[in-house]
Amino acid sequence: MALRNKVQSIVVCCWRKNSLLLSTTTITTSRTISSFATHFGNRILKSPHLVSLDDVPDDVWTSCSANCNDPPVHKLASEHTAKVIDGKQIADEIISEVSVQVKQMQKTIGVVPGLAVILIGKRKDSEIYVRNKKIACEEAGIKFALTEFSDKCTDDEVCDAIMHFNSDPSFHGILVQLPLPQHLNEGKILDVLRLEKDVDGFHPMNIGNLAMRGREPLFIPCTPKGCVEILIRSGVEIIGKKAVVIGRSNIVGLPASLLLQRHHATVSIVNELTPNPEEITREADILVSAVGVPNLVRGSWLKPGAVVIDVGTHPVEDPSSEQGYRLMGDVCFEEASKVASLITPVPGGVGPMTVAMLLYNTLESASRKYNFV
Amino acid sequence: MALRNKVQSIVVCCWRKNSLLLSTTTITTSRTISSFATHFGNRILKSPHLVSLDDVPDDVWTSCSANCNDPPVHKLASEHTAKVIDGKQIADEIISEVSVQVKQMQKTIGVVPGLAVILIGKRKDSEIYVRNKKIACEEAGIKFALTEFSDKCTDDEVCDAIMHFNSDPSFHGILVQLPLPQHLNEGKILDVLRLEKDVDGFHPMNIGNLAMRGREPLFIPCTPKGCVEILIRSGVEIIGKKAVVIGRSNIVGLPASLLLQRHHATVSIVNELTPNPEEITREADILVSAVGVPNLVRGSWLKPGAVVIDVGTHPVEDPSSEQGYRLMGDVCFEEASKVASLITPVPGGVGPMTVAMLLYNTLESASRKYNFV
Repeated sequence: MALRNKVQSIVVCCWRKNSLLLSTTTITTSRTISSFATHFGNRILKSPHLVSLDDVPDDVWTSCSANCNDPPVHKLASEHTAKVIDGKQIADEIISEVSVQVKQMQKTIGVVPGLAVILIGKRKDSEIYVRNKKIACEEAGIKFALTEFSDKCTDDEVCDAIMHFNSDPSFHGILVQLPLPQHLNEGKILDVLRLEKDVDGFHPMNIGNLAMRGREPLFIPCTPKGCVEILIRSGVEIIGKKAVVIGRSNIVGLPASLLLQRHHATVSIVNELTPNPEEITREADILVSAVGVPNLVRGSWLKPGAVVIDVGTHPVEDPSSEQGYRLMGDVCFEEASKVASLITPVPGGVGPMTVAMLLYNTLESASRKYNFV
Repeated sequence: MALRNKVQSIVVCCWRKNSLLLSTTTITTSRTISSFATHFGNRILKSPHLVSLDDVPDDVWTSCSANCNDPPVHKLASEHTAKVIDGKQIADEIISEVSVQVKQMQKTIGVVPGLAVILIGKRKDSEIYVRNKKIACEEAGIKFALTEFSDKCTDDEVCDAIMHFNSDPSFHGILVQLPLPQHLNEGKILDVLRLEKDVDGFHPMNIGNLAMRGREPLFIPCTPKGCVEILIRSGVEIIGKKAVVIGRSNIVGLPASLLLQRHHATVSIVNELTPNPEEITREADILVSAVGVPNLVRGSWLKPGAVVIDVGTHPVEDPSSEQGYRLMGDVCFEEASKVASLITPVPGGVGPMTVAMLLYNTLESASRKYNFV
């Protein structure tokens, strides 16, 4: 397997019986994961299966009380300019690999993966996101269907559409574009969606399995999964690092914090009621911001050399652009790029990765159904 | 309702348009929660329903970048001795109130709640925990059944026992005493347990619903629920405070971190791979330690005035005690009580609360089944 996980080595400083020991601990997995999980997935993504991350030595707690000198994560470039991560390029690589697998599936078993999207109302940003998903599906050879509702529709109408796709065997993924209009019951609507087709990974059963060590969700939510894939492909070590997630939405902040914990980061979650959040973010080796407030994160909020993942996408008017607006992230890019070691831009960072992960999850769903590895 | 939630008020410092505004924001709920959830529960516990915590103002993100002067949580007593929280007394009060409700249920509908416990192997600590649960159930008038297996039993034998209780209408709660012997598949065993009887709250669906804002799990895991109930009954404000959880087990650390987030704390989770954990714990207004390493948390790990919840219970030999051993917590009590403002002892702190919450969850389960409010 060309892209199989590297076995990660960590150096643990142990303070025992008044002597400081240095030992190298190798983390591997002793758990049995299903044959499907073993064979599928790592061919395209670098992200490992979650249960493979679960086995860490049981007795290293005492080690933490020693004053280990933690080496800096990344050295700053001499000119103090962060390397900009090209999310578009990584996403294109992944979509291209998904496309190869889709062709292979069609050739071998005569089936292509199918994705059904339900869009409610006329939010401009939602329409753009859905259009991007459609284009990417077409590019990868994934069947795509869109069902649109007016923003006056009822819960029952949306649930009926979901149930239609639940029972249609040609669709392996179903996605309800969020946010929904206020009058709709998001919980009720998402609960109707069949777990095996929940390619967004927002079902509470998927979130629970994402949170709990020893378990593997059927799908990891696309944006957090894209963030971690970016980190891994950029050579950023997550294990043992301090990660701060700004924002705690069910669709990004929460699952991002859970996923980073499964990767053994020390995670802090900053919310809108946190006093002086910059005091917490300044400690972060890895900062993930998912709020939607342009320029919330200033250069002074960052630790020198931090890795900054900007999930924010906030449309602001811009008459000079073709669409009349441009997207802004949560991070003040100009300031942050003078302090960080690595940074994702907006647009062209996490956004394309979210789409790529959606295609990956749809392929994974179809592969699981037909046991196509 | 005598014990209904106080409406919480928070002061938010807003930095907008170059002026510092001070506004008082009142958090109430506008969500519709089920009539059962509205009527049951708060009569015994002070903890609010989770969805009632979810509504916070949408636009206060910008306020966080102001340098608010956060007042100290608790003033230190002049003699610098922390107040010791009597978990036994609080637990006794709750069990007594549960007992009243159980009698009322029996009188009104001729039913008592039932709890089935499955114990595998001969772990001394597990045997003690189960014995304490049995005694407490008898005290509260809750029907109790124990099924014991040798530590050589198979997954299938345990699953059969669970399925028996799943279909027995006289049991409203089923609990598999953890940890299991290594050879058993914990995930498989717990997944068999009917969600409506999962009074331990360890099913991934319950954990997912605990994690996600806008949702309410059927049961909140007993130990984290006991920790938060202790905080609330001790008058500790959680909203906007920095909480650090040491440990990330599926049964305590993880759900405790999720529950504190639902209560709007800024949560950091320290794990066994965290370098210099004391640097993080020193920032905590509220520290929850759930590791099982005696004296891991020293006085120097604490912020003066912190509230310390010690979940650790580690048996150490003690020939002078009646049982031949005594329980030690994670926290060096002698040192910590000179720095903290409030602290739970071991034993007599969180332990009795866990049992009380189990009885509460069992009563809640029976009440839900019969719509007895």
